[in-house]
Amino acid sequence: MGRSAGEELQGTGVSPGVGHGPALRLARSVPEPPAGGFEGDAGAETDRALEAMEATAQDLSARGERAGGQAQEVLSAQALMARDPALADDVRRRVGEGAAAARAVADAFAVYRDMLASAGEYMAARVADLDDVRDRIVARLMGVPVPGVPESDTPFVLVAADLAPADTATLDPAKVLAFVTREGGPTSHSAILARSLGLPAVVAGEAADRITDGTELLVDGTGGLVVADPTDEQVGRATARQAAREAAAANSGGPGATADGHRVPLLANIGGPKDLPAALENGAEGVGLYRTEFLFLDRGDAPGHEEQVEAYRTVLDAFPAGSKVVVRTLDAGADKPLAFLPPPGEEPNPALGVRGLRMMRRHPEMLSSQLSALAEAAGGAQAVLNVMAPMVTDAEDAAWFAERAREAGIEHAGVMVEVPAAALGARHLARSADFFSIGTNDLTQYACAADREAGGLGRFQDPWQPGVLELIATTARAAAAADRPCGVCGEAAADPLLACVLVGAGVTTLSMGASALPLVRAALGRATLEECKAAASAALDAPGADEAKRAAREALPGVAELGL
Amino acid sequence: MGRSAGEELQGTGVSPGVGHGPALRLARSVPEPPAGGFEGDAGAETDRALEAMEATAQDLSARGERAGGQAQEVLSAQALMARDPALADDVRRRVGEGAAAARAVADAFAVYRDMLASAGEYMAARVADLDDVRDRIVARLMGVPVPGVPESDTPFVLVAADLAPADTATLDPAKVLAFVTREGGPTSHSAILARSLGLPAVVAGEAADRITDGTELLVDGTGGLVVADPTDEQVGRATARQAAREAAAANSGGPGATADGHRVPLLANIGGPKDLPAALENGAEGVGLYRTEFLFLDRGDAPGHEEQVEAYRTVLDAFPAGSKVVVRTLDAGADKPLAFLPPPGEEPNPALGVRGLRMMRRHPEMLSSQLSALAEAAGGAQAVLNVMAPMVTDAEDAAWFAERAREAGIEHAGVMVEVPAAALGARHLARSADFFSIGTNDLTQYACAADREAGGLGRFQDPWQPGVLELIATTARAAAAADRPCGVCGEAAADPLLACVLVGAGVTTLSMGASALPLVRAALGRATLEECKAAASAALDAPGADEAKRAAREALPGVAELGL
Repeated sequence: MGRSAGEELQGTGVSPGVGHGPALRLARSVPEPPAGGFEGDAGAETDRALEAMEATAQDLSARGERAGGQAQEVLSAQALMARDPALADDVRRRVGEGAAAARAVADAFAVYRDMLASAGEYMAARVADLDDVRDRIVARLMGVPVPGVPESDTPFVLVAADLAPADTATLDPAKVLAFVTREGGPTSHSAILARSLGLPAVVAGEAADRITDGTELLVDGTGGLVVADPTDEQVGRATARQAAREAAAANSGGPGATADGHRVPLLANIGGPKDLPAALENGAEGVGLYRTEFLFLDRGDAPGHEEQVEAYRTVLDAFPAGSKVVVRTLDAGADKPLAFLPPPGEEPNPALGVRGLRMMRRHPEMLSSQLSALAEAAGGAQAVLNVMAPMVTDAEDAAWFAERAREAGIEHAGVMVEVPAAALGARHLARSADFFSIGTNDLTQYACAADREAGGLGRFQDPWQPGVLELIATTARAAAAADRPCGVCGEAAADPLLACVLVGAGVTTLSMGASALPLVRAALGRATLEECKAAASAALDAPGADEAKRAAREALPGVAELGL
Repeated sequence: MGRSAGEELQGTGVSPGVGHGPALRLARSVPEPPAGGFEGDAGAETDRALEAMEATAQDLSARGERAGGQAQEVLSAQALMARDPALADDVRRRVGEGAAAARAVADAFAVYRDMLASAGEYMAARVADLDDVRDRIVARLMGVPVPGVPESDTPFVLVAADLAPADTATLDPAKVLAFVTREGGPTSHSAILARSLGLPAVVAGEAADRITDGTELLVDGTGGLVVADPTDEQVGRATARQAAREAAAANSGGPGATADGHRVPLLANIGGPKDLPAALENGAEGVGLYRTEFLFLDRGDAPGHEEQVEAYRTVLDAFPAGSKVVVRTLDAGADKPLAFLPPPGEEPNPALGVRGLRMMRRHPEMLSSQLSALAEAAGGAQAVLNVMAPMVTDAEDAAWFAERAREAGIEHAGVMVEVPAAALGARHLARSADFFSIGTNDLTQYACAADREAGGLGRFQDPWQPGVLELIATTARAAAAADRPCGVCGEAAADPLLACVLVGAGVTTLSMGASALPLVRAALGRATLEECKAAASAALDAPGADEAKRAAREALPGVAELGL
């Protein structure tokens, strides 16, 4: 992406909104320092090396203080490495022998690194942290960008190949205007983070590699557009579109419904009582996905009965009579290991292993105690408790879970549909499942055989993929035939355009992160049920994700007007 | 499973045939040796310990020689551990201090183990080998079974929780009559191994744990039956059923067809020219899956043009004019890493990562050189070359591959259907794909989100699962609508009953390991196309795998007669 003003680059929008500012790249690698010596005084060169080490240590400490928690521990340990006196001595010696500062640092670290790598498993795991410290010092000495998220006093558009959780741990959201990445998809880490921070994000493919630091970028995460050195008119148009969306969202209110009054309850995905204020503020009509892992993670034993009842009751009591609270029972496995419920040995592909209900079928007492706490919490609450199991695969699974729920005295027991076989067999599952809730993130992962976390597979990490839409429609049809509710609680429900398509395909409730509720409510209010049905039918006929989006926009003019 | 004579246990047959003999368990764990001392002379106890160490070393060396290759390297290294003089000294000292031989060995190994574990990553990886040596010596001293595949002079039925590749590396097939496992499914390692060795195998669930060493077992891998201490009549009936199947297979010949003459070409899955004799002997009418990885694995660089042409031409020349040879292009990825084509970094779930066509799209030059060698090999051959790509996910993938094949001058370019999205989108893929070939092993793995290699998920590793049958039927319907051939080349095609169901669902060719061809041919010859269609329709309506099998048997009386 060169400097020709106003050049437009069409990518895939993975988080809505418009951002505008200078590009700053996330640097990944630091060049090898040259082997040669230095000009001038050895004392001055030594000082330069030691100053860079101390400055890096200070920077790491400061980042740690800002980050807090576990990140702080790691960063403080790294600061100690940068201040290691033995390392400093070795650097002094090497410069004294004629090596330039950067080369001396790299060589001194190499010795330390070998020691660490051979000092047993625990220490060997610190090697990556040590390498990061070395890269930071060397980058400083060579005058190249320090690896990791760039620091800047003024806001910027973050450009990267992809963003890993480690890259963004110390990100200051106030400084970032938008993300542009080469890789990723709607369910990638950077997309999920961008949406949770309300930042626009676009996946731009290889063109992202050609964006240089300082280029002015206009990013429209809703339309998937990136413009280099935009004209005032381009910025104005994008800003106006965004303003229209914000106005529509701000003016949306009341229960979710299509323009012609077809009710679609809009619910919130929550991870615990802490997420209730945002849900209520954004008008959630209930909870469509209550992830209960937070109660079980990072502790040595399972939470007790009373502790569970308390956490469940707080959520049930937050909603009025008749509203729905859907609780997903513990989803543990090798991807989310619990200290007191270890995964069954090494799994080469944990996502295809013993997780969710599969784990609970091996530890039925754990499920029963959770269900009994849920049943107790529901007693006296006005909201209606619904429980559902994750990773249900076939009718036998569904029947087993429903039986456990009945035993605990819970009336509404349903299943998550996130395994393709469950979607395809939904008509059989409906015999024992009271409702379905489609988890589009995992469903997409399995349908397209593309890891949600893997880079370079963004095209397949997209719920607009024809195969995924087909599985959703199959589930909704089976639910309708058996007179069962069918919700969607994956990222797909948070995409306003896709939300209308889902409703057209027969989905009866939509559940999403609270911040997405207003715009989805607004979009739904701009489409009739007939338009939604036409959009679903057109999207289901499309041969690819892009074609499906285009077809949906054509069928939903009121929604497309908002630039969605 | 107690000793009540003739007790029948219904499991899941995963490899056909009948076997009969005493049970021998694969022992997995050795009990902790008691802390107490010993009776008698310290010199004699020391000798006992050192003799057990030497005997174990000799056993490991002998196994190594029988196994050859990489297994021999590992086993020889283990023999050296058992003969380590420092270890022997430590054992001597401990017995001298009053420890019994088994306890002394366990404690001496524990010290060695700690050293190894803290000696850097490479040595730490040897800990499992060391533990195995310790277990073997301790087991010998305590008089309990040595872990791993039991050694026996007389044939036996191998009983195990599950069989991993490591367990079976040194298995003597001449000594094993059948497998009975607790875990597993039709695509698990033990099932695939059993079928390739022509051994009956049944997955028996938890009942397998109750089978004790020496119990006489009758195993009918076709019907999924295990009988403890069978009566003569039970053995007679099972043997007669097996004889009928063998006679039917032996008498089957000529081209594959239903009883009423509907042609279904029966093809072979091969891994290279070495598999041709068995294919031809068993009447393969061509090749439905030529895995080309063997040319690329275990070498430092890609095979040259001439070497490839030679390997492809040998296979094409083995079949007469008009027969089909379907070559799958290189399927590389983190699951099958190539030295010259490394996978893109660490993948948490390699099966959901960059593999198959995804890898080739990153290295198009590798695909082009393979396609050009294939095109040259096809020139002058009488058999018709068909090429197909693995891990095709959407229409865009199919079009890209077809374009590369046309560029190389290849006329027939199709796709493997092993990703659920590809099956669901088959009507879109048919625009550019000349044919489909369904890989039921991976398709099952993704549709049910259950790793082919994982233990404990056997119920989901079954192509009879309703969701999998649905995907197969969807693909076959799309193929028929577009007038395209649709084959099956996964394990499903080798199941004679399922083969008839597949034909009824619209599959046009079946490809399988050569040894499965005769019985599939015989089964097909005992069913009319109408019966196959009725079986497919009944199986597709069934809520579970077992129900689907039962329904298919009812609809296919001529096949069920063979006890299939």
